[in-house]
Amino acid sequence: MDDIRFAVLGTGGIGRRTLEVATHRDGLTPVAACDRNGVAIDHDGLDVDELLDATEGNIASGPSDERDVAPDGGAAAGGVKQHGEQAGIVASDQGRETETPIDDVIAEADEIDAVLMALPNLEHDFIPRVAQRFADADYEAVLIDVLKRSRVIGMLEDREQRLVDAGITFVCGAGATPGLLTGAAALAAQSFVEIESVDIWWGVGLKSGYEDNRGTVREDIAHLDGYDIESAREMSEAEIEALIDEHDGRLEFDDMEHADDVLLERAGVCDAEDVTVGGILDVRQDEKPTTTTVSVTGRTFDGETGTNTFQLDDATSMEANVNGPAIGYLKAAVLRNRAGDYGVYGPAELMPTF
Amino acid sequence: MDDIRFAVLGTGGIGRRTLEVATHRDGLTPVAACDRNGVAIDHDGLDVDELLDATEGNIASGPSDERDVAPDGGAAAGGVKQHGEQAGIVASDQGRETETPIDDVIAEADEIDAVLMALPNLEHDFIPRVAQRFADADYEAVLIDVLKRSRVIGMLEDREQRLVDAGITFVCGAGATPGLLTGAAALAAQSFVEIESVDIWWGVGLKSGYEDNRGTVREDIAHLDGYDIESAREMSEAEIEALIDEHDGRLEFDDMEHADDVLLERAGVCDAEDVTVGGILDVRQDEKPTTTTVSVTGRTFDGETGTNTFQLDDATSMEANVNGPAIGYLKAAVLRNRAGDYGVYGPAELMPTF
Repeated sequence: MDDIRFAVLGTGGIGRRTLEVATHRDGLTPVAACDRNGVAIDHDGLDVDELLDATEGNIASGPSDERDVAPDGGAAAGGVKQHGEQAGIVASDQGRETETPIDDVIAEADEIDAVLMALPNLEHDFIPRVAQRFADADYEAVLIDVLKRSRVIGMLEDREQRLVDAGITFVCGAGATPGLLTGAAALAAQSFVEIESVDIWWGVGLKSGYEDNRGTVREDIAHLDGYDIESAREMSEAEIEALIDEHDGRLEFDDMEHADDVLLERAGVCDAEDVTVGGILDVRQDEKPTTTTVSVTGRTFDGETGTNTFQLDDATSMEANVNGPAIGYLKAAVLRNRAGDYGVYGPAELMPTF
Repeated sequence: MDDIRFAVLGTGGIGRRTLEVATHRDGLTPVAACDRNGVAIDHDGLDVDELLDATEGNIASGPSDERDVAPDGGAAAGGVKQHGEQAGIVASDQGRETETPIDDVIAEADEIDAVLMALPNLEHDFIPRVAQRFADADYEAVLIDVLKRSRVIGMLEDREQRLVDAGITFVCGAGATPGLLTGAAALAAQSFVEIESVDIWWGVGLKSGYEDNRGTVREDIAHLDGYDIESAREMSEAEIEALIDEHDGRLEFDDMEHADDVLLERAGVCDAEDVTVGGILDVRQDEKPTTTTVSVTGRTFDGETGTNTFQLDDATSMEANVNGPAIGYLKAAVLRNRAGDYGVYGPAELMPTF
């Protein structure tokens, strides 16, 4: 395939790691990245090493407001890594300050094949609204996100005709779960004629990645009993630390709201209510506290009941399992887009490309 | 999706089971089936139960020659289930005798969305030649096969431009392995930036399916040490039985020629030589002699080495794992075809649709 020129919106953990993983994969040129304060654009290809070095531990963040980009890990009020005007991409030689980072990327869209939205989406409709802005600018290429929440999918579907009219191929939920594991569930289902249940169980050890992934941890906390998006969003960093202490660094989640359910229903695999997602997050060790496993139980045409399984090696990090698939789905979506297939796709509808 | 009208060429084990599995899945209408002596066509939908009942244990077969269809399980000289002129589809109320079954199906191609070629392909180029005939008739729809041998893929690629010109979307190797397991390997690879090895290991217990799957068993024998396609093809049924006796009903295969290798290379996952396929076939029990497992070992962007795995429950039969995915890939291919994507696809390029 021809070279793919891509942009990343948001340079928190997911955006940064996607840039890094992309340097290991063929046929990808990162041409733009932005955070809330700045943008870096180079159509000959960004210097990813310089960008990552300059922004390491220096992520632009600030109080959640109506500004343009709320980067992963920083949108919450009082992010500990706020460094004022010189935070984030602006600290890179390639970056420049801007009040309108997303509009600056949209202005270059003619020369961009795919945009990964690595944004925390603490407001439910943030990513759908950003997609709408690309459509309004008649962007004709790929948008992809790694969002988690089920309710966002419907908001994207509501905008699907507008995306199709613009010529956008949108892949939603294209990380690990939803993403890689949703795809694995759709494949594992093929042995059966009726699916009884899909159980997705993940383990994440995040000691060394904790600083970069505070936004993700905050999103996860919203899934704990007694918490929701609003209350998690309003927690101070100290409150989050206290909560983590209380659990000895280890948070267990049962039956989370994860878009795997609606994405598998969209693909016709099973009803959303037959899908369960849970897992264990340990922020004090890098070893996974449990093995990430997808179990698909169904009935075969010849009357047997069985469970097919997909397991990720404990040695593969969350970053490897989110960002590798994100790039794989991005590449697959570019092929679809070039063939004229527009609209909203979930990972169970699209085999990622290596 | 709109209803898919499909045909099956060959009514050996794979063709028969595909018709049966299709009755359990949504949106599929079987409109044509043929074997070497006969054809059944009904654009309102074949009566699958009647067709299967009438042909059970009564598969049309005969010496391998230049006749039109060599059905799975019967192409070898002296198939035990030969029943003369009244064998196979002709025994069904819906069947009629014909000298040109494939041409009879091609003549109806305007009203067919997909054709599954469940043919044994004992001559390497049999399936590619049949595909060529569909292309020559300007068939504009989907062709799909469940072939196993690596060398056939290249023959299809040689004809790819002709298939594209006609408007054909061809999916090759879309059964279990290659097929479901090739797709699983491509997904499992997404955690890594470099693949070291893909190991596919299958177990098949075929006691009750043995009669229907003699063609498949014969093809497998060709992979044993000391045998090849030619010598397996020339074995009498008695010689095959003697060979099976010698192994107490259990044949173990190591490093078979299986198209998973070239199909994964085509998809950019790894080099063909890094793929190993083997397994154990037991024709005297239905229990699987070993658990079917795909293991993908690779290196992550952050320098770890790991092995992701995909396992099929021992309770899922070979038939469930071949014919379910075949239908899933067929459905996915119809979507591609309707979007105007023509050419040759492997299972690692296409997420099957449930």
